[in-house]
Amino acid sequence: MAGLDGAIDTLVRRLARLPGLGPRSARRLALHLLTHRDEVLRPLTETLTAVADAIGPCGVCGNLDERDPCRICSDAGRRAGLLCVVEQVADLWAMERTGAFAGRYFVLGGTLSALDGIGPAELGIERLIGRLGAEPVEEVILALNATVDGQTTAHYIAERLAASGVAVSRLAHGVPLGGELDYLDDGTLTAALSARRPL
Amino acid sequence: MAGLDGAIDTLVRRLARLPGLGPRSARRLALHLLTHRDEVLRPLTETLTAVADAIGPCGVCGNLDERDPCRICSDAGRRAGLLCVVEQVADLWAMERTGAFAGRYFVLGGTLSALDGIGPAELGIERLIGRLGAEPVEEVILALNATVDGQTTAHYIAERLAASGVAVSRLAHGVPLGGELDYLDDGTLTAALSARRPL
Repeated sequence: MAGLDGAIDTLVRRLARLPGLGPRSARRLALHLLTHRDEVLRPLTETLTAVADAIGPCGVCGNLDERDPCRICSDAGRRAGLLCVVEQVADLWAMERTGAFAGRYFVLGGTLSALDGIGPAELGIERLIGRLGAEPVEEVILALNATVDGQTTAHYIAERLAASGVAVSRLAHGVPLGGELDYLDDGTLTAALSARRPL
Repeated sequence: MAGLDGAIDTLVRRLARLPGLGPRSARRLALHLLTHRDEVLRPLTETLTAVADAIGPCGVCGNLDERDPCRICSDAGRRAGLLCVVEQVADLWAMERTGAFAGRYFVLGGTLSALDGIGPAELGIERLIGRLGAEPVEEVILALNATVDGQTTAHYIAERLAASGVAVSRLAHGVPLGGELDYLDDGTLTAALSARRPL
């Protein structure tokens, strides 16, 4: 594009490749950054430089943090008996936002997928089983997505853990809070019905 | 949030304040950046650092560029007789994408607004009139947004330029290409009808 300078063009192209952004929003974002240099562009660049150097995966749970082990794994106030298995760091963040979980985590980094060549080794299942031997874990909560891949992976892990004597649970399925039955899919409604609770 | 580390938290908050991003997309973007450090995060940081140092407004037209005057203003192949007045740099980029305009630009940086205290001085109207005296401009095209503010500003500029003897035009209003009449607002349809062209 004639009006777009080399460096600006590079910026727009890089921004447009980020998740959630397209060519139009990337142009808008680039202009915002260029016209708010000292309030937005420079602080953002500093933060990006800082995290690029400082943040890495935790060797124990897979969370992203400045420390290794991360501050969740090294927090003595956390219950060592509860281990929550999640697919991604984003899921760990979602669990943490609830403030309802006081145990520790294990991030798989994905789900089993024969098509993508992701087997138990890629997900670190042996490392997970190793933690059960090394830590006083009493219950493993499989907080995997309610997708086919997530549930396949959950069943595989539950089978592998069956011999360990550790209790294995999964998140409940049911009606989301604020959800309307009429808009709910049949599978969820069936699950909610069969898992009904006495009042 | 307990699971979010200080530096990551800062990154997410900074990203969430950018236009077009919210808390959820900022978290997603932060995770993408942190998990694609060498392919995405570092190149993006380098580009941001480069543009922060290199890009500035053109002293002649207001475009953003590495050079001043910008490469449009200093391009001898551009017609000096045509001057296109736009509100923002984004509008200049939009005009350039069409490839249909071979003249030069003047970026107002906004529209007249009594409420926001933006008068002719803030928009550099005198500088625009100065250019008409210094350059061999034959026609000024007011490519301002078809909003109340844009049209008010266009009328003001047209009045100020009336004495200069330079031809003043504006973009045509009408049916957008690919547009369906049934979905068009009444004002646009009325404008398209009154500006109908013989076939």
